[in-house]
Amino acid sequence: MWSEFRRRKLEGYIEAKEKNEVDEDIIPLLDLINSFEDFVTLSSCSGRIAVMDMPEFGDKVEAIFLGKWHRYVSFDEVFEAIKRGKQTTWLIMFPPIIHVACKDLQSAERLMAIANNAGLRRSGLISLKNNVVEINSLERLEVPVAVKGKVIVGEEGLKVMVEFANKKLKRSKEKLKRLYELLLQLKP
Amino acid sequence: MWSEFRRRKLEGYIEAKEKNEVDEDIIPLLDLINSFEDFVTLSSCSGRIAVMDMPEFGDKVEAIFLGKWHRYVSFDEVFEAIKRGKQTTWLIMFPPIIHVACKDLQSAERLMAIANNAGLRRSGLISLKNNVVEINSLERLEVPVAVKGKVIVGEEGLKVMVEFANKKLKRSKEKLKRLYELLLQLKP
Repeated sequence: MWSEFRRRKLEGYIEAKEKNEVDEDIIPLLDLINSFEDFVTLSSCSGRIAVMDMPEFGDKVEAIFLGKWHRYVSFDEVFEAIKRGKQTTWLIMFPPIIHVACKDLQSAERLMAIANNAGLRRSGLISLKNNVVEINSLERLEVPVAVKGKVIVGEEGLKVMVEFANKKLKRSKEKLKRLYELLLQLKP
Repeated sequence: MWSEFRRRKLEGYIEAKEKNEVDEDIIPLLDLINSFEDFVTLSSCSGRIAVMDMPEFGDKVEAIFLGKWHRYVSFDEVFEAIKRGKQTTWLIMFPPIIHVACKDLQSAERLMAIANNAGLRRSGLISLKNNVVEINSLERLEVPVAVKGKVIVGEEGLKVMVEFANKKLKRSKEKLKRLYELLLQLKP
């Protein structure tokens, strides 16, 4: 039953908020999504920039966070984090991601259309069980910048990468803002 | 009507193949998908590596291809392409992407599950009109490497980026191969 499922998930969301497990800057958007009878959020990340040490190409299981930010970063912050690297160190920008269960296919389709209009063009239905829509953007940066604490892209190169990560984060946050505004227009 | 829709799309696919508009290395997979009565491919790209000149951050409309490959690239090829750059030059790895229309939601769900099993984890239903499943992976590289023909990430840095692009392309092609094998198992 949708209403029972939604009630349980909403409780989980409220609990997660109380435990500060929800990214703060995304809470107004999640609250708004959850104010619609047809939707309930399952999980989310508002997007972040990270410096990660990885033992091998893309092997995130054994990856170690050297730095992690839900906001824009300065060159110095990234540089300090990189210096602590012992393996191959990556600068990564994770785009925002939100999973929303929808009452039915029609409401899922509506949410997908709105998300796409907001510029979150990687949005789609990923499960038909609870009509789960993944809201996602294409902004993504994942680039090796250092080996054993030594920058391999040059200082100028690293500056461009950091600026690029910030721009990508900014762009993705603007899309979340647009999504918020589009959803707000649907409220009576 | 599904069978009529599928017939038309199949004709389009065969025409595109004859005109060499379909990436060659992906044809066996597309042929296999199209051999199922429940599926028909709409569009595809087998993944590629490109060097692009872009006037502004992410503005792909005015972007100029300085080099484009559906295969692994050498450092020299990339370096030569970069030298022709007049603006900010990017090294980009586009992941494979396939759009498949499905007969109904059940067949779409089956295809999504198979694609996810093959490691193509960015797969989902993007349109409910013709039950279009987008098959996609997370491999992606998009990084500024030069300004006005001058490398900004150092030679060592550029070498790492090229190697990284090749690894990403390899990984995504392996996933397409796995998808092929999983689909083959479903044949009677």
